[in-house]
Amino acid sequence: MQETLNYIQENKQRYIDELFELLKIASISADPAYKNEVLKCAEMCAQHLKNAGADAVEVCQTKGYPIVYGEKILDKNLPTVLVYGHYDVQPPDPLELWKKPPFEPYIEKTEIHPDGAIFARGSADDKGQFFMHIKAFEAMMKTNTLPCNVKFIIEGEEEVGSVSLGDFVNENKEKLSCDCILISDTGLYSKDQPTVTTGLRGLSYMEVEVEGPGRDLHSGLYGGAVPNPIHVLSRMIAQLIDENGRIAIDGFYDNVLELSAEERAEMAKLKDDQEEFKKSISLKGVEGEEGFTTLERTSIRPTLDCNGIWGGYTGEGAKTVIPSKAFAKISMRLVPYQTPDEITEKFTKYFEKIAPDNVKIKVTPHHGGMPYVLPSDTKEFVAAKKAMETAFGKEVLPYRSGGSIPITAMFEQVLGAKSVLMGFGLDSDAIHSPNEHYGLFNFYKGIESIPLFFENYAKM
Amino acid sequence: MQETLNYIQENKQRYIDELFELLKIASISADPAYKNEVLKCAEMCAQHLKNAGADAVEVCQTKGYPIVYGEKILDKNLPTVLVYGHYDVQPPDPLELWKKPPFEPYIEKTEIHPDGAIFARGSADDKGQFFMHIKAFEAMMKTNTLPCNVKFIIEGEEEVGSVSLGDFVNENKEKLSCDCILISDTGLYSKDQPTVTTGLRGLSYMEVEVEGPGRDLHSGLYGGAVPNPIHVLSRMIAQLIDENGRIAIDGFYDNVLELSAEERAEMAKLKDDQEEFKKSISLKGVEGEEGFTTLERTSIRPTLDCNGIWGGYTGEGAKTVIPSKAFAKISMRLVPYQTPDEITEKFTKYFEKIAPDNVKIKVTPHHGGMPYVLPSDTKEFVAAKKAMETAFGKEVLPYRSGGSIPITAMFEQVLGAKSVLMGFGLDSDAIHSPNEHYGLFNFYKGIESIPLFFENYAKM
Repeated sequence: MQETLNYIQENKQRYIDELFELLKIASISADPAYKNEVLKCAEMCAQHLKNAGADAVEVCQTKGYPIVYGEKILDKNLPTVLVYGHYDVQPPDPLELWKKPPFEPYIEKTEIHPDGAIFARGSADDKGQFFMHIKAFEAMMKTNTLPCNVKFIIEGEEEVGSVSLGDFVNENKEKLSCDCILISDTGLYSKDQPTVTTGLRGLSYMEVEVEGPGRDLHSGLYGGAVPNPIHVLSRMIAQLIDENGRIAIDGFYDNVLELSAEERAEMAKLKDDQEEFKKSISLKGVEGEEGFTTLERTSIRPTLDCNGIWGGYTGEGAKTVIPSKAFAKISMRLVPYQTPDEITEKFTKYFEKIAPDNVKIKVTPHHGGMPYVLPSDTKEFVAAKKAMETAFGKEVLPYRSGGSIPITAMFEQVLGAKSVLMGFGLDSDAIHSPNEHYGLFNFYKGIESIPLFFENYAKM
Repeated sequence: MQETLNYIQENKQRYIDELFELLKIASISADPAYKNEVLKCAEMCAQHLKNAGADAVEVCQTKGYPIVYGEKILDKNLPTVLVYGHYDVQPPDPLELWKKPPFEPYIEKTEIHPDGAIFARGSADDKGQFFMHIKAFEAMMKTNTLPCNVKFIIEGEEEVGSVSLGDFVNENKEKLSCDCILISDTGLYSKDQPTVTTGLRGLSYMEVEVEGPGRDLHSGLYGGAVPNPIHVLSRMIAQLIDENGRIAIDGFYDNVLELSAEERAEMAKLKDDQEEFKKSISLKGVEGEEGFTTLERTSIRPTLDCNGIWGGYTGEGAKTVIPSKAFAKISMRLVPYQTPDEITEKFTKYFEKIAPDNVKIKVTPHHGGMPYVLPSDTKEFVAAKKAMETAFGKEVLPYRSGGSIPITAMFEQVLGAKSVLMGFGLDSDAIHSPNEHYGLFNFYKGIESIPLFFENYAKM
């Protein structure tokens, strides 16, 4: 193992240089204008896999963006780890809030990252993280220490709901057969408290539309006499969450797994500093479901958020218009045993129920995803916990995260394998926000932890 | 008079051709990108005044866009009519809803305009209307029938609150001295019911901002634990109007002039067909202040409308973000004796009061305007009523409109003269909306009514 870690140490600077090239590609899957960039990024991933020593590398076509595949099969009798990552990124807007352009990576020290952090869209989510696996694999190959088989799939549609991945996995069950799936697309609980993610929330995401008058109207001539769709939508949004912070949709909590007092006490061991939390995001005060802590609200409880709203005149100056339509994007984070289909249906029914008679409404579901739990008595969890304890020199705790990686449930169903979520980001990395970054410390700790995981897992 | 009307008849087609050239200029005052177009439009207006026979024509510079001036002084002992109009237009968005580009005028017949209507941004508001005055003036000049003095001011900032007009009028009291002001920037009650506008609502317009966290957040990692500014703004908007359709701002109705039962009965003579109203704007059902009719809600009652809302991700696809900020544009229409300063202050206080402690808010007032009333026993009203009765061959009623022309109150204060609002548009003209148009019938009836007004007024 020491030889592998030495190799990593000697090649640190090159790893960063190579990652920068990957971060320069604006692989924004949500915006069709960036199609060529997304495709270019897939090609570069394939080249990196080849260079690292993978066989059978292929840019596999799908109905959407391609999935990059590669493998190293040492012996069919050895266990096989399937590494998953995604090379697509979130849109970078609002652009004006970035200190430097989002696709021109640079390193800067921050309070929380005294060794420096890489600033760029995708640095933490997920280019910087899946790239650790390619580099750890390279180190194991070059030092002849790979202890088991490995397969890679790196997709380009994670940020738009992994629309083609399900079909791909179903059509390639044999090729992707494995004993476990290893994913770095989550974070540590904090820099001082390394964790393995044992739970993820699911997702149900919709776009809603409220139509008042059939065309835009002059607010002087019509104001006061017609339903203004912005007001109606605002009133409807106000009715989605009640005064106790509970989601008001009928039956929303029916299938929620309620944690026992013991489980909640175990969770409470994780340091949950309210003042630090507020300071880290410049917040005056928290809010959420009554009876739960901030940590619980963001992990074991389902939530509802408007992710966008628009309607009427939003340009400079003043326009006295009553718009015909107003729109919002609304998403819900789900916990076991809610399902996206169930919640999408309940949301739609409720939204129809609370709509006044004098408007027309439309609900369009976007992608959804199942929630996921990895029990802490599985060998996947234990191998990851031990690997990180060696790398960090600290106790590693299980942690249920608030984010969603809906594919973990699909992997389990189709491939019959558990996913182990060994992520190295921090909540403060500003993923999905301007000035996304990923600590150099985290990047290197990740690359060190991966060969340790392989070693532990191959022995179990 | 017959000679003047004959001249108008003979030059009809040229009037339209000239108006088309004016409509081709995208003089959007709200958007700085169109500065050159606005300036070009001012020059063209000046040229038209010269061609029609005006003296002392000048493009007067202001801190904002210029004001075009022209005059014809026959005799200082004769009365002087000051004609006001504006050459700037509203932004044309949403562009995709226009059948043809907004600055490429064309004529098309509609159900309500069997003779055809001119489609273009500004056709009714206000290029098509102030141009009637230049053409009527031309007709009186060419036929030597102008019975009194006339002055013109055509400004370029009406759609952004006439920001420079007040200073200009104050600095040029002598130059602009007059006996009455004639304005065509309003509409008829309906095609079958010509009216002179005797009241206008005032305006108070603000932009509001709600800030939750100091930066955009990932809704998976933070969802459920922080105030989402879109939700907070929605809840605050929902609290602006109560369940009876009354504006909930403290003291909002304190200075509202309540009409007597007699006055309301007089108003009720105007045909107010609910089914036709709904059909004309493809509306499922009306809503508004309890205890008032649609006609009353849009004329004698103050109102509040969101004119725009935005925040978070509004592009294609799905982005799981909690935005740092959400914004809205909110305006109120005022009635006598409310004032914009009073209402702006009351709005701001109330908005601060209903803001939860865990967000920051900001209220930025845009322009405002005073409400206005022209009593029906003034000679201005009588001259206009008689002129239109001759032109239309029908009884003309007084009508209080819901729109705002805040400058009427300023004119009265500074110049000591009443404004007569003789407008020829229709509510269905879609001003401030896509596919704005102005009926040829209305355009010609306007040009005919104007010399009749001058004749009546000069005699009184």
